Amino acid sequence: MKIDLNSDLGESLGVWRMGDDAAMLGLVTSANVACGFHAGDPAGMLATLKAAAERGVAVGAHVAYPDLVGFGRRAMDIASADLVAGVVYQIGALQALARAAGTKVRYVKPHGALYNTIAHDARQARDVIAAIRAVDASLPLVVLAGAPLARWAADAGLRVVAEAFADRGYAPDGTLLPRGTPGAVLHDPTRVAQRMQRLVREGVVETADGSLVRLQADSICVHGDSPGALAMTTQVRHVLEGAGVTLAPFA
Amino acid sequence: MKIDLNSDLGESLGVWRMGDDAAMLGLVTSANVACGFHAGDPAGMLATLKAAAERGVAVGAHVAYPDLVGFGRRAMDIASADLVAGVVYQIGALQALARAAGTKVRYVKPHGALYNTIAHDARQARDVIAAIRAVDASLPLVVLAGAPLARWAADAGLRVVAEAFADRGYAPDGTLLPRGTPGAVLHDPTRVAQRMQRLVREGVVETADGSLVRLQADSICVHGDSPGALAMTTQVRHVLEGAGVTLAPFA
Amino acid sequence: MKIDLNSDLGESLGVWRMGDDAAMLGLVTSANVACGFHAGDPAGMLATLKAAAERGVAVGAHVAYPDLVGFGRRAMDIASADLVAGVVYQIGALQALARAAGTKVRYVKPHGALYNTIAHDARQARDVIAAIRAVDASLPLVVLAGAPLARWAADAGLRVVAEAFADRGYAPDGTLLPRGTPGAVLHDPTRVAQRMQRLVREGVVETADGSLVRLQADSICVHGDSPGALAMTTQVRHVLEGAGVTLAPFA
Amino acid sequence: MKIDLNSDLGESLGVWRMGDDAAMLGLVTSANVACGFHAGDPAGMLATLKAAAERGVAVGAHVAYPDLVGFGRRAMDIASADLVAGVVYQIGALQALARAAGTKVRYVKPHGALYNTIAHDARQARDVIAAIRAVDASLPLVVLAGAPLARWAADAGLRVVAEAFADRGYAPDGTLLPRGTPGAVLHDPTRVAQRMQRLVREGVVETADGSLVRLQADSICVHGDSPGALAMTTQVRHVLEGAGVTLAPFA
Repeated sequence: MKIDLNSDLGESLGVWRMGDDAAMLGLVTSANVACGFHAGDPAGMLATLKAAAERGVAVGAHVAYPDLVGFGRRAMDIASADLVAGVVYQIGALQALARAAGTKVRYVKPHGALYNTIAHDARQARDVIAAIRAVDASLPLVVLAGAPLARWAADAGLRVVAEAFADRGYAPDGTLLPRGTPGAVLHDPTRVAQRMQRLVREGVVETADGSLVRLQADSICVHGDSPGALAMTTQVRHVLEGAGVTLAPFA
Repeated sequence: MKIDLNSDLGESLGVWRMGDDAAMLGLVTSANVACGFHAGDPAGMLATLKAAAERGVAVGAHVAYPDLVGFGRRAMDIASADLVAGVVYQIGALQALARAAGTKVRYVKPHGALYNTIAHDARQARDVIAAIRAVDASLPLVVLAGAPLARWAADAGLRVVAEAFADRGYAPDGTLLPRGTPGAVLHDPTRVAQRMQRLVREGVVETADGSLVRLQADSICVHGDSPGALAMTTQVRHVLEGAGVTLAPFA
Repeated sequence: MKIDLNSDLGESLGVWRMGDDAAMLGLVTSANVACGFHAGDPAGMLATLKAAAERGVAVGAHVAYPDLVGFGRRAMDIASADLVAGVVYQIGALQALARAAGTKVRYVKPHGALYNTIAHDARQARDVIAAIRAVDASLPLVVLAGAPLARWAADAGLRVVAEAFADRGYAPDGTLLPRGTPGAVLHDPTRVAQRMQRLVREGVVETADGSLVRLQADSICVHGDSPGALAMTTQVRHVLEGAGVTLAPFA
Repeated sequence: MKIDLNSDLGESLGVWRMGDDAAMLGLVTSANVACGFHAGDPAGMLATLKAAAERGVAVGAHVAYPDLVGFGRRAMDIASADLVAGVVYQIGALQALARAAGTKVRYVKPHGALYNTIAHDARQARDVIAAIRAVDASLPLVVLAGAPLARWAADAGLRVVAEAFADRGYAPDGTLLPRGTPGAVLHDPTRVAQRMQRLVREGVVETADGSLVRLQADSICVHGDSPGALAMTTQVRHVLEGAGVTLAPFA
């Protein structure tokens, strides 16, 4: 049994700090590094990439809409020409910084509103897929487990990596409960860790109504942007390792 | 006899147009493409790269300070960590867009205030050199003919390409006359073309006081941001070709 | 008979030029001046405001989504707190620049995607109305003639100024034909001018199917971002003046 | 005896937090609020202004160079037209937000590299002074006690407010010890508080060589961007109040 743990890193901007990259790099196996569109300035990105390289953590391009003030969380009606070229631009920028850091970009994971939109929006999904293929068709794309995007990307020839969210509640149909819904965000580190253990060992996750849903996931997304999130990630890692699960990058 | 003609292209931004890229791509042999820091949005950069690829024009990364409103023309007291990573970021972004356009980045030419500063400022010069070496040490650096930067870059192992400016006046010591000085900017297409012909054939340029100064140049920088500049470039090309000079990328 | 002619000005950005502000200031009676979010840098805005003050042209705040690369034309799912404060910020910035230019901001006109969205989106409309009221409840709001926004703004106590578009086709229900539809954009200066004359004199505009629709408009929006647009504006002004219509700011 | 305590607030940006504005608003009497050029997004600025209004803290415009990534700390060779209009723009934006928050902008304090530059650079100083006069000539300008700027601003008719820095060491000539020099930054809250008490009561501050220098200050600048800085500010306030000094806005 084997799984990847991924998290969003490199999200500081100039003097503004976010998250505890150093601590997270001791816990995760893959780091989604911001590319300057929703967060990340070049010097900070390079520092995160160097730290990831030293810790043997795989790095991916965390591409986003161009929206620093909104942190890439605002849906945007962006033209295909802009979206395709913008994703290419971000991947390339991170590739060069990764080279300077002695590592390389091993996958692409869209961020925030772009992640949510392309999970089900065929046009923007096609744009992101085209961008990845234009840069390097062998780069895997990380997608929400069960989303239509998984099939679209696979049909286009991309390797698809499905991910589950450690601290999010699931509906009986395998989709995420929308934020704001009771149970949408989980806070108990022990319970979260046990759910992820079951996901890895049995391929199921308990849903909001107590039923089980099958979920195929190659990676688990965890967060480290608060002391509580960091504690939860520590617990997830501890429980999985205790259960004999090997934590390793998918890439 | 052989020389390269280079010009700054891809300097539009969103709806804002600058220069006549299509016309210039029929005249020059190398295109310095903006990388998003002083000008250029990803979709516009990609369009310029595609057009350059179609015309067989070599492309280089026109890296700059992060300053859209100032068009990269304002001197900036930027820390080394920011300058190194910023240049790496820009080169990488353009490399990926070039790949998407079916071409590749063949050189680096700093823009505006960065170009002027590193010509003689050892610290910022060292930062730019380090950035290029971190991405790809085989990328040539375009420098002002005769500037200290040429030696610093060569000592660091970079290939150096010296350029002359078609429409600028020179002092007897081979430096450019500062803008604002009488004779600093030349406007007569015929005279400009003849000067460049002499530069290529004899390796000299006439200076402000009528004396000749030796100038070794691998490339001539021309402009196309106004109808007058475009006409001058057309004339330079016409005169050089008429004199049997081969126009070809240095890269 | 009296009408206002308004146009979007001050939409340059740093070195990038847009439109012919000098020519348009000789034709229009109200200038919608960009506030830095979709276009406009402070120095350019100030220059436009000074020129407007010299020509006796009224100025309004052309507020927009924060989106330079998209020129404020991309729909954006912006939170109320950001939209309200962003509109306040833009109005205030322009007010101070207007003071420095010896004039003052006399109205607010949203730009691009924000204009289109609030015409019918109650939530974002409420945010823009709240922003204007927070700065100065006596500032009129320019709206698309016939849009629900007109009523919402009036109900909130704002003075509403309805505008018609000189070069746009109308559907029989008084809405604009969507761009891309045949007849959505008109190109014949004479025909456009005659339509506007009829609008002012009779309060009707001919629609796509030849029928007439009643349209109450206090202002006509014209464009000057191309030689053709400038010629059309010149013709509209010429025809209206020839018909005895007084052109004057509504404010 | 009376003195003002001022601090830099509103320096968050979107999701990125900086400092503890709520705590600081309980300690200071004047808040220098970021205006969006070096920090601060409109919604965050508005929230800080509302909190300041509730606590009865006076607010000033903390104007800066346009440089988010560099936090306004990088010297910039900015043209006068851009600097004048940029300062006008920032003051106006904050004035409107202040109005929306039920308060008003009572002074101007330049930030970071702009603050340092205009302390002694006559050209940029003149630009900032002209900008303030263009918006509202009655707005006081906060300057480094003893700097040439104080005289220039007074000669131009501005009210000048001199400030001392609580945690900085002074040279015998009354200038600040450059950062990096031993003793340039003070860390002992008790010692810092006692120095400020002596400044207020006796008009002198102890310098690096143990001598005393006369310093006329209307305000003391304190920081709250770390727990240590917050503790120091608390101590300064406590000691001053214990010594019978009245803390009140200068404005």
